[in-house]
Amino acid sequence: MSESLIGYRGEALKLLREANVEVGDVVRITKGGLVYEGLLMPRSMYEDERHIVIKLASGYNIGVRITPEIHVEKVREGVKPSFTLPPRPEQKPGSPKVALVSTGGTIASRVDYRTGAVRAALSAEELYSIVPELAEVANIDAEALFSVYSENLTPKHWTAMAERAAYHIKGGAAGVVVAHGTDTMGYTAAALSFALQNLPVPVILVGAQRSSDRPSSDAALNLLEAVRAAAFGPFAEVVVAMHASASDDSIVFHRGTKVRKCHTSRRDTFRSINSPPLAKMEHGKIAMLIEDYRKRDPSGELMLKPNFEEKVALVKFHPGASPKLVKWLVEDGYKGIVLEGTGLGHVGDYWFSAVKEAVENGVLVAMTSQCIWGRVNMKVYDQGRDLLAMGVIPLDDMLPETALVKTMWALGQTKDQKEVRNLLKANIAYEYSPRTLYE
Amino acid sequence: MSESLIGYRGEALKLLREANVEVGDVVRITKGGLVYEGLLMPRSMYEDERHIVIKLASGYNIGVRITPEIHVEKVREGVKPSFTLPPRPEQKPGSPKVALVSTGGTIASRVDYRTGAVRAALSAEELYSIVPELAEVANIDAEALFSVYSENLTPKHWTAMAERAAYHIKGGAAGVVVAHGTDTMGYTAAALSFALQNLPVPVILVGAQRSSDRPSSDAALNLLEAVRAAAFGPFAEVVVAMHASASDDSIVFHRGTKVRKCHTSRRDTFRSINSPPLAKMEHGKIAMLIEDYRKRDPSGELMLKPNFEEKVALVKFHPGASPKLVKWLVEDGYKGIVLEGTGLGHVGDYWFSAVKEAVENGVLVAMTSQCIWGRVNMKVYDQGRDLLAMGVIPLDDMLPETALVKTMWALGQTKDQKEVRNLLKANIAYEYSPRTLYE
Repeated sequence: MSESLIGYRGEALKLLREANVEVGDVVRITKGGLVYEGLLMPRSMYEDERHIVIKLASGYNIGVRITPEIHVEKVREGVKPSFTLPPRPEQKPGSPKVALVSTGGTIASRVDYRTGAVRAALSAEELYSIVPELAEVANIDAEALFSVYSENLTPKHWTAMAERAAYHIKGGAAGVVVAHGTDTMGYTAAALSFALQNLPVPVILVGAQRSSDRPSSDAALNLLEAVRAAAFGPFAEVVVAMHASASDDSIVFHRGTKVRKCHTSRRDTFRSINSPPLAKMEHGKIAMLIEDYRKRDPSGELMLKPNFEEKVALVKFHPGASPKLVKWLVEDGYKGIVLEGTGLGHVGDYWFSAVKEAVENGVLVAMTSQCIWGRVNMKVYDQGRDLLAMGVIPLDDMLPETALVKTMWALGQTKDQKEVRNLLKANIAYEYSPRTLYE
Repeated sequence: MSESLIGYRGEALKLLREANVEVGDVVRITKGGLVYEGLLMPRSMYEDERHIVIKLASGYNIGVRITPEIHVEKVREGVKPSFTLPPRPEQKPGSPKVALVSTGGTIASRVDYRTGAVRAALSAEELYSIVPELAEVANIDAEALFSVYSENLTPKHWTAMAERAAYHIKGGAAGVVVAHGTDTMGYTAAALSFALQNLPVPVILVGAQRSSDRPSSDAALNLLEAVRAAAFGPFAEVVVAMHASASDDSIVFHRGTKVRKCHTSRRDTFRSINSPPLAKMEHGKIAMLIEDYRKRDPSGELMLKPNFEEKVALVKFHPGASPKLVKWLVEDGYKGIVLEGTGLGHVGDYWFSAVKEAVENGVLVAMTSQCIWGRVNMKVYDQGRDLLAMGVIPLDDMLPETALVKTMWALGQTKDQKEVRNLLKANIAYEYSPRTLYE
């Protein structure tokens, strides 16, 4: 690896060498009629070869994907960054071991900007250098599993994440933190909730809405409190740890099956739906907000069930939506369709024959509501009853996104339709709330 | 029409006659293995012939759809209801004329239960008998346009509603109230917002979450305040009028383009997204909550633009979603695809070639966010930039549902792709909020 082009490999390295640029130089990249100009940033060895990362004048880092028409040129030489890290802070003896599995996203790719590097993977040393308080909390065992924008993650990645979390838990970790892009963090949280059963310790997904090179960054606090909860939290569930409000004083832990990203940019974008959050952390102290939860018990035996069936679709019904959509999915061999119906769980009557046909073809069809809040009740109106009679499975107050993930998971466990239905109706990871919680 | 089977026609009438039952009798209906028992309710002449309506012991009215295997039998004779209405209350001289267009849903089908009848259509007399205060407010010109569950409504129904509203406005109505099922009321509100331009008076959609035969019903208050706002409200926009909170003391008016049903059953299910509500009504007094609004001006000339292109799909992206979905839509001749992407407006990179192909085939592809709150910003990450470069249109803070409706509408106005893009980017009915409103 070239020292002056740290982290670049393959095609990216070739392009940058040809342009005679080094990390820290100001470069101009032309691509598809667009021009990007900024400081060439380093990458980590864990990152892909398809991007060149520059810091724009606005302060944003952007990764420009390499395509055949890309052109890179040097504008001027820049100050070369130094990568010397401060000495690792002294570890408190007997600190619990926390595994940190990095998968990508804002928190992972930018959290170490103060060192001058843009890296997807976090080494324990880097982490300590950015958030020195971490050393007082836990002994971190960091692993870069992958480095992808979370919208590129698929069920295969969920399987890998579940397996790595299980590996660390079986290795004695007091808890696992998964650094993750926020876009699909809710889906992954649900996936790990079903894949990691009988959890002995917490598994905590954490992300950031603002990168650490911005004054409003939520990365450091989210990470610190996620690690603290992994080390000491009394619960043993899969949760999402993010800001409780726009201010910087508390973190909430949302149950993996009840959480949803509800704002494109706010730091408190994640909300627990149809349930209060599981717990809250203020000034380093955790308060449980729900009485009925799974307790930490390191002697418990984790059950790993990491398989997901990918041939499941989440289909949002809307006025004028064509029932052909359902037919196409059936013809394409889909095993499950989760409908996001209207109101209490409805679709237009012009969809009935397509839905009936899907069920008759052995496709599992389940119903959730696009209202997001509340619960489906298909017994109030006759059209709901008609759908129930066809075999559509009402999923009560389960989030549509969680319902999708659970259906993928249930179909990944068994081929027996009846067992799949039983799995869907069972409350496995608090995906169903009791009625009294919100009514 | 048989007096003893009031409102039943065709097949339903035949079945009920064969079973020798009359309205008010207790009947047992067997269908598809299910048994329904209850009081046979009357129907209105505006309703379809395909349902038999009974009141269950629980107090719910249900409509049982007639299918070949249905069986109806009399359990016992019941008390026959009386349909004598109280005398029409005295009208205040000079009251403004308000048109009430009924389309179906809980508010329309059950609001007159106290008279003993279940009817989809409301005559002015019936309305006055249920909500006598209406007579003090306005002179109501009631019309039963259709009687359908709102999930069965399609863009063709929007066109009809827009045309009828325009008819009443041109006829001198001080305002139009549209009684509508709540399931898809948000979609219809957006549709009327684009179809009825340069509005001189308010157009107010109103629904109910609880039917008027339940103590917690919101039907009477919603209807009264909707009529009051139609008669006297200072704004000339398309709005949704519903409960402001779970308590029974105020009604809010949500802009038709910014409103969404956010709970399956709460009375305050409708919320303005990325915007405050337009106005609030407490104790009969309207307070505007937004300064910039379209003022009532009966001298203005309405522009009716009621056409919608139905070949537009709203597609919610999720992890593992197949890009085939986009391909199928393109092959099927779709003209527009509105994506509900993740976060700031993303889809997985495994969708890129399908999206590119769609745009190259002349399909308009637009981006919204499944976060619901916030606004898409596709310039922050390179994958967003890649999608922009392909020609994907970012729709800022527009609701996905409004974006679907607006795309259907824009494609219904012109075949010129550039003009369609311009229409999409223009702020026609406050569907885009200024940034300062919520940030």
